[in-house]
Amino acid sequence: MIENWFSERYSDNLQLSFRIKDQLLSVKTDFQRIDLFDTYDFGKLLTIDGTVQLTDRDEFVYHEMITMVPYYFTKKKPEKALIIGGGDGGAAKTLLGLGFKRIVNVEIDSQVVEVSKRFFPELSSAFDDPKVELIIGDGIKYAKTSDEKFDVVIIDSTDPVGPAEGLFNKEFYKGVKNLISDRGVVVSQSGSPFYQPNALKLAYSGMKEVFDDVRVYTAFIPTYPSGFWSFTMASSGTLSPRNEEVKSMQYFNGEVLEGSFKLPQFVRELLKKT
Amino acid sequence: MIENWFSERYSDNLQLSFRIKDQLLSVKTDFQRIDLFDTYDFGKLLTIDGTVQLTDRDEFVYHEMITMVPYYFTKKKPEKALIIGGGDGGAAKTLLGLGFKRIVNVEIDSQVVEVSKRFFPELSSAFDDPKVELIIGDGIKYAKTSDEKFDVVIIDSTDPVGPAEGLFNKEFYKGVKNLISDRGVVVSQSGSPFYQPNALKLAYSGMKEVFDDVRVYTAFIPTYPSGFWSFTMASSGTLSPRNEEVKSMQYFNGEVLEGSFKLPQFVRELLKKT
Repeated sequence: MIENWFSERYSDNLQLSFRIKDQLLSVKTDFQRIDLFDTYDFGKLLTIDGTVQLTDRDEFVYHEMITMVPYYFTKKKPEKALIIGGGDGGAAKTLLGLGFKRIVNVEIDSQVVEVSKRFFPELSSAFDDPKVELIIGDGIKYAKTSDEKFDVVIIDSTDPVGPAEGLFNKEFYKGVKNLISDRGVVVSQSGSPFYQPNALKLAYSGMKEVFDDVRVYTAFIPTYPSGFWSFTMASSGTLSPRNEEVKSMQYFNGEVLEGSFKLPQFVRELLKKT
Repeated sequence: MIENWFSERYSDNLQLSFRIKDQLLSVKTDFQRIDLFDTYDFGKLLTIDGTVQLTDRDEFVYHEMITMVPYYFTKKKPEKALIIGGGDGGAAKTLLGLGFKRIVNVEIDSQVVEVSKRFFPELSSAFDDPKVELIIGDGIKYAKTSDEKFDVVIIDSTDPVGPAEGLFNKEFYKGVKNLISDRGVVVSQSGSPFYQPNALKLAYSGMKEVFDDVRVYTAFIPTYPSGFWSFTMASSGTLSPRNEEVKSMQYFNGEVLEGSFKLPQFVRELLKKT
């Protein structure tokens, strides 16, 4: 029997491989290459430029962690969110479940949205909600030119190479700062501290230059390199969670809200040197 | 150029592959198959029956987490430890660094010790210390027949198939209980909650039947399946950490001591059903 596998190379010397039933799509867009696989163990799997973005089975970890944590760190219950990236709709969907009244989602690549509509309809259905405004455009330009204010800004991007490179630096964070309401927060995915310390360093040092308080939290995501992922969150003013009952999801809960900020020593050392 | 890879199959449909410079050893012992690879990214890598046991680059996480956490949970500073398994010497080595006065290490397979002496001398050097008594024998029998008391018992075994199967059940834990000093603790590695929920369920439910307090903690270990690993710890009496300054290692620190017990919701649900 011929077996077909999709492999993500973490380096020249390490790869994770998923056995696939079929490749359902491969498209080169103006920005990147998108592939869609039907896997045996993880359901549908979306890659961008060969790196796993989401799978049916474990997308919940990433989407809960990039939304629920900032949700509890705004001073008042947040109502307006800006998502940069996130064309699959997963972040917007989770925010809708939290009662947000307005969500602006700026995705640079319309094809990501189209692919998600076709293969992840439960996520992309968020874009059919009248509370969500989907803008196909450049998040960096948007951050520079918009004058709307948001309680939560979520940078749900690919890694800091290619189209997402400009989303990991001081200039961009300055633009973001102007979009954040009083005591609002920004969060960015910031890569695997083990294999991509540079993504975390870029996000952390860039935010440090612009915001008053910057904190890193982590989550376990089995289909991402090393299984260990970081998020970097910042605010003008001190970050502390609201004193209210915390919702339990599939991964996230009140314990995770606290524990995800407790960093292994090698991550603390990495941040100290940043 | 011919590339050589070692792949660990996590299931029929998922595998992690390490590019190797060379295979340095392959031996079938009375108990299991041991292989030793020289990898590009992780240095030397030891497998037992095809599953990664340790690598030069990330062994510190596992060995710190299986020793440092129980160390802080005994009522008084612990002095005597029993290790079942752990033939590589990594657990014994970390305990020596904590000032233990006597360590009994019961490893069933002398070949694991021999391989470690050859390829991981910095770990196996622990066996040269007069405070360490290495017994090549069956940990299950030892637990039944010994009448010595230990402050910390560490079950540093392979997964609950093959020679380690008997280390994940009530009968064995009953024997262990008799070896534990007043307010001492036992800890066992208990697999990946994501891919091997059964190992965690077995350890947790087995200990629940025998001990008064059972708690699960986790760590991120990049070369283990899913990158997310569980440990299950138990005591006769309530588990709580001593109130003293916590040593920082490479992975472990005071934050990790606290945060590693904050479990994702799907892990909590798994334990509830156990």
